Amino acid sequence: MTSSPYYREIGNEREIFRHAFKHQLPLMLKGPTGCGKSRFVESMAAELKRPLITVSCHDDTSATDLLGRFLVKGGDTVWQDGPMTRALRESAILYLDEVAEAREDVVVVIHPLTDHRRELFVEKLNELLKAAPEFMLVVSFNPGYQKRVKELKPSTRQRFVGMSFGYPSPDVEAEIITHEGGVDIAVARKLAAAGEKIRALEELGLAETVSTRLLVYAAKSMRAGISPRQSCDIAIAQPLTDDPVIQRSINDLVALIF
Amino acid sequence: MTSSPYYREIGNEREIFRHAFKHQLPLMLKGPTGCGKSRFVESMAAELKRPLITVSCHDDTSATDLLGRFLVKGGDTVWQDGPMTRALRESAILYLDEVAEAREDVVVVIHPLTDHRRELFVEKLNELLKAAPEFMLVVSFNPGYQKRVKELKPSTRQRFVGMSFGYPSPDVEAEIITHEGGVDIAVARKLAAAGEKIRALEELGLAETVSTRLLVYAAKSMRAGISPRQSCDIAIAQPLTDDPVIQRSINDLVALIF
Amino acid sequence: MTSSPYYREIGNEREIFRHAFKHQLPLMLKGPTGCGKSRFVESMAAELKRPLITVSCHDDTSATDLLGRFLVKGGDTVWQDGPMTRALRESAILYLDEVAEAREDVVVVIHPLTDHRRELFVEKLNELLKAAPEFMLVVSFNPGYQKRVKELKPSTRQRFVGMSFGYPSPDVEAEIITHEGGVDIAVARKLAAAGEKIRALEELGLAETVSTRLLVYAAKSMRAGISPRQSCDIAIAQPLTDDPVIQRSINDLVALIF
Amino acid sequence: MTSSPYYREIGNEREIFRHAFKHQLPLMLKGPTGCGKSRFVESMAAELKRPLITVSCHDDTSATDLLGRFLVKGGDTVWQDGPMTRALRESAILYLDEVAEAREDVVVVIHPLTDHRRELFVEKLNELLKAAPEFMLVVSFNPGYQKRVKELKPSTRQRFVGMSFGYPSPDVEAEIITHEGGVDIAVARKLAAAGEKIRALEELGLAETVSTRLLVYAAKSMRAGISPRQSCDIAIAQPLTDDPVIQRSINDLVALIF
Amino acid sequence: MTSSPYYREIGNEREIFRHAFKHQLPLMLKGPTGCGKSRFVESMAAELKRPLITVSCHDDTSATDLLGRFLVKGGDTVWQDGPMTRALRESAILYLDEVAEAREDVVVVIHPLTDHRRELFVEKLNELLKAAPEFMLVVSFNPGYQKRVKELKPSTRQRFVGMSFGYPSPDVEAEIITHEGGVDIAVARKLAAAGEKIRALEELGLAETVSTRLLVYAAKSMRAGISPRQSCDIAIAQPLTDDPVIQRSINDLVALIF
Amino acid sequence: MTSSPYYREIGNEREIFRHAFKHQLPLMLKGPTGCGKSRFVESMAAELKRPLITVSCHDDTSATDLLGRFLVKGGDTVWQDGPMTRALRESAILYLDEVAEAREDVVVVIHPLTDHRRELFVEKLNELLKAAPEFMLVVSFNPGYQKRVKELKPSTRQRFVGMSFGYPSPDVEAEIITHEGGVDIAVARKLAAAGEKIRALEELGLAETVSTRLLVYAAKSMRAGISPRQSCDIAIAQPLTDDPVIQRSINDLVALIF
Repeated sequence: MTSSPYYREIGNEREIFRHAFKHQLPLMLKGPTGCGKSRFVESMAAELKRPLITVSCHDDTSATDLLGRFLVKGGDTVWQDGPMTRALRESAILYLDEVAEAREDVVVVIHPLTDHRRELFVEKLNELLKAAPEFMLVVSFNPGYQKRVKELKPSTRQRFVGMSFGYPSPDVEAEIITHEGGVDIAVARKLAAAGEKIRALEELGLAETVSTRLLVYAAKSMRAGISPRQSCDIAIAQPLTDDPVIQRSINDLVALIF
Repeated sequence: MTSSPYYREIGNEREIFRHAFKHQLPLMLKGPTGCGKSRFVESMAAELKRPLITVSCHDDTSATDLLGRFLVKGGDTVWQDGPMTRALRESAILYLDEVAEAREDVVVVIHPLTDHRRELFVEKLNELLKAAPEFMLVVSFNPGYQKRVKELKPSTRQRFVGMSFGYPSPDVEAEIITHEGGVDIAVARKLAAAGEKIRALEELGLAETVSTRLLVYAAKSMRAGISPRQSCDIAIAQPLTDDPVIQRSINDLVALIF
Repeated sequence: MTSSPYYREIGNEREIFRHAFKHQLPLMLKGPTGCGKSRFVESMAAELKRPLITVSCHDDTSATDLLGRFLVKGGDTVWQDGPMTRALRESAILYLDEVAEAREDVVVVIHPLTDHRRELFVEKLNELLKAAPEFMLVVSFNPGYQKRVKELKPSTRQRFVGMSFGYPSPDVEAEIITHEGGVDIAVARKLAAAGEKIRALEELGLAETVSTRLLVYAAKSMRAGISPRQSCDIAIAQPLTDDPVIQRSINDLVALIF
Repeated sequence: MTSSPYYREIGNEREIFRHAFKHQLPLMLKGPTGCGKSRFVESMAAELKRPLITVSCHDDTSATDLLGRFLVKGGDTVWQDGPMTRALRESAILYLDEVAEAREDVVVVIHPLTDHRRELFVEKLNELLKAAPEFMLVVSFNPGYQKRVKELKPSTRQRFVGMSFGYPSPDVEAEIITHEGGVDIAVARKLAAAGEKIRALEELGLAETVSTRLLVYAAKSMRAGISPRQSCDIAIAQPLTDDPVIQRSINDLVALIF
Repeated sequence: MTSSPYYREIGNEREIFRHAFKHQLPLMLKGPTGCGKSRFVESMAAELKRPLITVSCHDDTSATDLLGRFLVKGGDTVWQDGPMTRALRESAILYLDEVAEAREDVVVVIHPLTDHRRELFVEKLNELLKAAPEFMLVVSFNPGYQKRVKELKPSTRQRFVGMSFGYPSPDVEAEIITHEGGVDIAVARKLAAAGEKIRALEELGLAETVSTRLLVYAAKSMRAGISPRQSCDIAIAQPLTDDPVIQRSINDLVALIF
Repeated sequence: MTSSPYYREIGNEREIFRHAFKHQLPLMLKGPTGCGKSRFVESMAAELKRPLITVSCHDDTSATDLLGRFLVKGGDTVWQDGPMTRALRESAILYLDEVAEAREDVVVVIHPLTDHRRELFVEKLNELLKAAPEFMLVVSFNPGYQKRVKELKPSTRQRFVGMSFGYPSPDVEAEIITHEGGVDIAVARKLAAAGEKIRALEELGLAETVSTRLLVYAAKSMRAGISPRQSCDIAIAQPLTDDPVIQRSINDLVALIF
């Protein structure tokens, strides 16, 4: 069972999640890095009292990584469940983070689990796993990446209901920064305002803009006695870009606020 | 043996399938995602009282995946049949879904099974499997994918008789939505009308258009008490595209109907 | 020993094959899909009373696939002959179908078998296999593929005598269609005429044109009671192309004849 | 425990490192080759009394290299921890040098260690490793490489606080050269001046400019009795470039100073 | 020991070979397919009374293929010499045919064998093999291939003395055709004349032109009673090209002579 | 211990090598093929009384090749040191010839051995090898290759002191040719003059020009009674190029001298 993390709801995303869980619809979450998708899934798993199994997908994530494999132990071959097989046996919520990065053969395990069959045939075990009603598949990806080399196949996308996530409004974000970063609300509001400004500056040409997580990092640094300017440099400008000119623009913008 | 799923016939596709089964002609089904190809095969397997073995093909599906392999178990090497070998032994209907995605060496097992020989030599077992008259090979693919990097070799295509599938007419589709999504026929007709409109809007530039499956998802969401607009957003607009402008076009079009 | 299939000679190809067999010259057959190359080889193997071993080559066919490999069985390593090694031991006719698709290292086994040495050193067995006078190597490929990425190396080609195959004349083809498809000669002539017309229409831009095999499929469908138009659609237009416009052109052309 | 190497602080980088260590924030160091990043990490590990585990990342560094693998020893399979697993067990400082070079699947181990979870699930051991508060992850890379094919994913970058390093000022650098190269301060100042000049000459078009390390090499060569000109040729010009014209420019510039 | 094949000397190539053998100089033979390089090496091995070990190199020939590998047999691991290791132990002539095709790591075994060291360290056996004075390395390749993707590294080439081979003069070639093909000298002269004409026609654009081997094949076909025209078609035109227009040009040219 | 080969010093390269050895500086030798880099290293190893371990690097040389690997022998797994591990244990001079060809992961073993640490952690043995003061790393590469696809990373280069090698002056080269090729000094001077002329002819467009080694080959051939012209053809023109026109230019140039 997962302990519930702090999660601040923005719309009616909890209702949609409950509906998808109840009617056994696979769920697709879209949104930028650090906007709270993973925390949301964690908090729903806690509410629904289901174990949560998370897989951070990457270029080499394959069907085998999800299903499991045989290992040689003590002269014998022992099967070891992968996260998807474990999730099915435990009727867990399986969360495939950044699923668009995974290899193509991942569809082979996603497809039969996401139509009326809701089953998975594990070839190597010669075993058919039926999903219990409490099993749920959630995937997420970031639609904003510029280099859109990799995309979910349309025939895979059509198996999910979907929701888009964005960054919270400045008021909500300030609330989160206070709660997580340990600074008072006035400082948190300034950080949230800085975040809003940076996000609006499309001319910076950033691959990704500042996330709530980075604003919380900056808050923590300030609380540790590091000056606001340097806090924002190490927690915002440096992680976002290697270009000294853009770093200076970000830092100047922050200096105007503090 | 497969239990028969709900399938609504559109043309004389059942007659063609029976003919191909009776005369031992391999069958090729073409059509977009979610138009019912898999259900059709399932329902024919039930009618013909044959087991159905389905393989979702992908970039790494190889001859070995279809034929089987040796596994080391308890210090010894044990052969494990792949789905094609099993299908031959059980005289099943073998359904290779999205066969165009599979690796080139899959032809090595398809070719001798699809000409007058109807046999498969499993090199690793030194065993020749003869197809019983009840064995049937069915393949499917989606000819509409824009990125047509992968295609069945012409010399492979020429071994099949083929049929094209499209989406059902609005009346038939409404019938299906009522049956599957649990909404009354008036709502189902509106959803079918929305589907028809979206499919006609080629200027949306979608990689794939809305399938019957997504319309059923939307119906289910409405029945769960989610507003029609949000139901269509999460079940239609979000799965079809990540582009906010196109999402809005789809949602506006839906709003006009509901 | 192979049982002789139906094969209708067109030129003096039988004489050439007998000559190559008798004088131990490797033979190369060139021609489009479904024109009867494989049947010809089968029928010659039957006439010459030699076993026939066929390998459908593909992108991953390697020297190891032809030579054999060690397998671990019951804790020990057991050698298993590949098709080429078996063919040498049994003095069979070895037929490498679509040899141009195979991987480059296949030349390592072809070269010493196709010059004055006629031998094969199997490195892994430390064994030299000498070809008996009755062993024969036959290869085939389709020179018409547009994407001519893969080609036999000139130094490999120069080790063979070669023959080109085309489609039979309408009269001969009608004879074959009657024999194989079970329709009367009048219908067979119409199908042969349709085949001739489609093959002449270069503006269709087909990767491959209609083969005798597809005309036989159409004949079988007609005999099963399916209308001539739909028979030709499922057996000719659908297998040849996914383009609806070209499918219609083919079907219109057929409609004029029936 | 690491013994403290000589490290000359430039800004307040020690304070930032202590803060990141104390608040469990992952740290990202950016800067050119040979500017002292590795020494800095070594010296902080010594101050904080933590073991230091360094991994020089390269094109093939994968998650498995970091996590560990099973080895077959004496007929049995034995697990061997990788550097990341060892670092977690020993609560060490784990330093991934040139992390941008590593393979994409390294994110799978970095992500759960760098958010609020601070844990690592080792699939193959079925074991969840929780990071102690004293565990710290430090990564470094050189943002100045011209061929920027490889970059940390933005979603990975956003998990770190960052600092940029440059070369020290001539005074500080001369101090380091004296200390490390064993030459008197007058010679060290000349070498530092040469370094400053070469770095300013962007028209040389060097992939990387001269590092403090190379200036120390030149000092050592002079102390060994090799002439200043040849010392600078073998320690500066030859390592920096293969182009004889640029070598001569560098050597001429050095000749003006000595 | 190799039995001597028929070989007709053209220049003083035997003298050069003897010199290279005696002074332990590695030898490089260059020339088109089927001009007799392999026969020449065979005949020299017979004269010099050394065993001959031939390797037909290809895209995947690697150092391991030449050196040998461990195989698991009867539960134990047994070393098996590769052709180069065997050649060193038997003081054989090692002939790497089409060496330019082999993988780059083949240089690792060629280099120490071709300078003053004349030795080979087999890492896996921890064994240093010293070449006896009778060991000789001969390599060959065809410099005329149009697609010159692969070439011997200049640093490898510089370790050999080299000779270029061409086709024999018409008189010599007629002599060979009579000897090998069993036709009388008048027919052989016509075939040699045809060969000379085809080789001169650069406008045919052939990847390789007709070899002596193909002329011998044509001779054999004529002796078997096949007409001169068809003999030349199957033995010359078909092997050289798939282009019907070029085939016709070749056949017309032949028709003028016969 | 290495026996000292003949090596003719050109500048003060012996002094630089001794200095690098004494002060534990890694050494980088740059220069064309066959100019004597390997002999120089051999002769220094003999002078310094250290064993010499040479690795000819190539496209597939990896960290594992240098470090060693586990082999299965007699049912057990036995570790086998690679050349770098052996060099560390024996305090040898490790010479990586053509290091720029090696795979990128070779840096992982080079880096910690070439900074103040001078150590190597062998992950698979869980063993830290400390370099004794007598261990030395020498690398070489040829900066003149036209296809500069592969280059040492700048961050790797900056860990070495470097020296450039060229061809010897005609007088020195004639001395070497006499000594190695066994011809009298007059002939040797002609060969050295030919070498100088060919090297000056940049318009030949050779990938590499004639090395001292090839001039020695030519000398040996003359001493064996082969005419000067043919000696230079087989030992100079043929190894340098496949282009008949350039071969003729080289041979004409040689003819003018002899």
